[in-house]
Amino acid sequence: MPGPPPAVAAVRVAVRRALTEGALGDLSDPRPPGVGPGPDAPLLLVGCSGGADSLALAAGAAFVAPRLGWRAGAVVVDHGLQEGSAEVAATAAGRCRSLGLEPVVVAPVTVGQSSEGPEADARRARYAALATTAHRAGARAVLLGHTREDQAEQVLLGLARGSGARSLAGMPAERELDGAPGVLLARPLLGVPRATTRQACTELGLEPWEDPHNDDPRYARVRARRALADLGRDLGPGVVAGLARTADLLRDDADALDEAAATAHLELGEPPWPVDRLAPLPRAVRTRLWRRLALAAGSPGTDLTSAHLLAVDGLVTAWRGQGPLPLPGGIRAARTGDRVSVGPARS
Amino acid sequence: MPGPPPAVAAVRVAVRRALTEGALGDLSDPRPPGVGPGPDAPLLLVGCSGGADSLALAAGAAFVAPRLGWRAGAVVVDHGLQEGSAEVAATAAGRCRSLGLEPVVVAPVTVGQSSEGPEADARRARYAALATTAHRAGARAVLLGHTREDQAEQVLLGLARGSGARSLAGMPAERELDGAPGVLLARPLLGVPRATTRQACTELGLEPWEDPHNDDPRYARVRARRALADLGRDLGPGVVAGLARTADLLRDDADALDEAAATAHLELGEPPWPVDRLAPLPRAVRTRLWRRLALAAGSPGTDLTSAHLLAVDGLVTAWRGQGPLPLPGGIRAARTGDRVSVGPARS
Repeated sequence: MPGPPPAVAAVRVAVRRALTEGALGDLSDPRPPGVGPGPDAPLLLVGCSGGADSLALAAGAAFVAPRLGWRAGAVVVDHGLQEGSAEVAATAAGRCRSLGLEPVVVAPVTVGQSSEGPEADARRARYAALATTAHRAGARAVLLGHTREDQAEQVLLGLARGSGARSLAGMPAERELDGAPGVLLARPLLGVPRATTRQACTELGLEPWEDPHNDDPRYARVRARRALADLGRDLGPGVVAGLARTADLLRDDADALDEAAATAHLELGEPPWPVDRLAPLPRAVRTRLWRRLALAAGSPGTDLTSAHLLAVDGLVTAWRGQGPLPLPGGIRAARTGDRVSVGPARS
Repeated sequence: MPGPPPAVAAVRVAVRRALTEGALGDLSDPRPPGVGPGPDAPLLLVGCSGGADSLALAAGAAFVAPRLGWRAGAVVVDHGLQEGSAEVAATAAGRCRSLGLEPVVVAPVTVGQSSEGPEADARRARYAALATTAHRAGARAVLLGHTREDQAEQVLLGLARGSGARSLAGMPAERELDGAPGVLLARPLLGVPRATTRQACTELGLEPWEDPHNDDPRYARVRARRALADLGRDLGPGVVAGLARTADLLRDDADALDEAAATAHLELGEPPWPVDRLAPLPRAVRTRLWRRLALAAGSPGTDLTSAHLLAVDGLVTAWRGQGPLPLPGGIRAARTGDRVSVGPARS
């Protein structure tokens, strides 16, 4: 008996790994051959746009999930942003059903218009719909089809912002889905090249939808895709894997330093904090402490830059009597005597 | 009295900052107007190739250093790799003398041929010559003209390798020069755009040497320069500053985590190490511990990848009785019972 074609196999292996490791692994219940999941089996939903990545993931999940004791369905978010988006969503839903996924839910959303721009607005609406649908369907997990290239592009966008390890750390493979307590969000394909998902669709005779926005340079994601292609040409094809590996390593670093800052925060208690207890800490921990305090006081994370945090740190390391420092959101950092505080500016 | 032209001023400000902060600042001794450094003043040498960056730095140092109580000279390394390199070096040395630098030393070197490639070989020969010259001249510091673009290119090359925060952290602004104890190596221009050094040369009527190797795509540095230009076009001109800022932040992170690993190593003592003391540590610290042990046992750092270190870490986090793991350089990691060791493979 010949095995499945290589790209189909690669996607299945990735899905199997995601469902046997981490928190998802704790929910899996491998079944004997020919025995499907029972009616009380946990449910996962594949978030499917109809594009090659999520269609390949849907096919992989339809095959693998039942063998590991999961029921597998899909959710198709209709952003309503393009002419004919309802038909695109209906087609994607049809393909998911043809793969044997059940239930398949189409979730129409209304994308708001905030100052953060259309991509952030669409993302927010999409994740909210995923959370609502998962909650209503009683799902334990939502699977998304981000690939190794998506991860590398995410790292490049973080680089261009210059905002440190957490923003370079890319997307986590597994986390809790915001707004849906107890529901895991997983990305089984973060190590799989985009070419593989496309090839898997071809091998399975699945025709993926081509998002016309994928060529629109007004989108940061599209510019990152071009940048990645250019980098591969300049520095060699290994750059995609290098960026994805970088994301993994920096995610570990960011986790460790966030933890160190949380521990230090606990030990320091509420500010103001004495300088002689701050000075021995590494700067990477101190700047994270300043960030924690500023966020807790209501400073908007998107406006808080490393320059702000380094300026606050200067109250410890380069003290020459400077006055209070204003931070975004009406917050200020100040040193009084040998103590530093960060909090709302008082009039 | 009009001030100096803007680019000249920017280079001087950067040199002044380097000479008043950090360890160099401790050696500086600001002089009253018109009073130069005494004969016992510390000496710094500018490493000058004759290119725009190091020529602008030489001019900046010639102006600023005496005002901060330094004598300023230069060292021109002749790599002997190109036709006419001796003339290029002599011309650069002449320009340094015309700026008032003294002494100006031309250091001819013989570049070896190792498996690491011509760029690494030239770099090794260059830094060895800087160390020898600094030592002989009794210099306390060597200044190099790396710019913000050089820093950004360094980050890109680290990214393509995918080897973690330390390799993304770029070049430090100040460190001890290898092979010359007590001599500081400083890079005052890491925050200065390359266009500024070029403009400063124009403003000063200094004609920089154009290295023909700067267009040769066989050199990783040249490929990184193209990659940076492409990224700027794709993601916007802010990417250079973003990469340089990233390097700064990740250098802090790497310092903090290296320190945490050193502390943990001290507490753990000599391996084998008990698993129950390793498991509570963050993975970012544990992988650095494995790296320390492997390097101490003689594993070559250039061959030791994150994949190796993560495999060793699996002996703690994913233990299912796996056998000893071979690491580069005839080293092996093994778990026996509840203890993990890394050391030379025994026959």
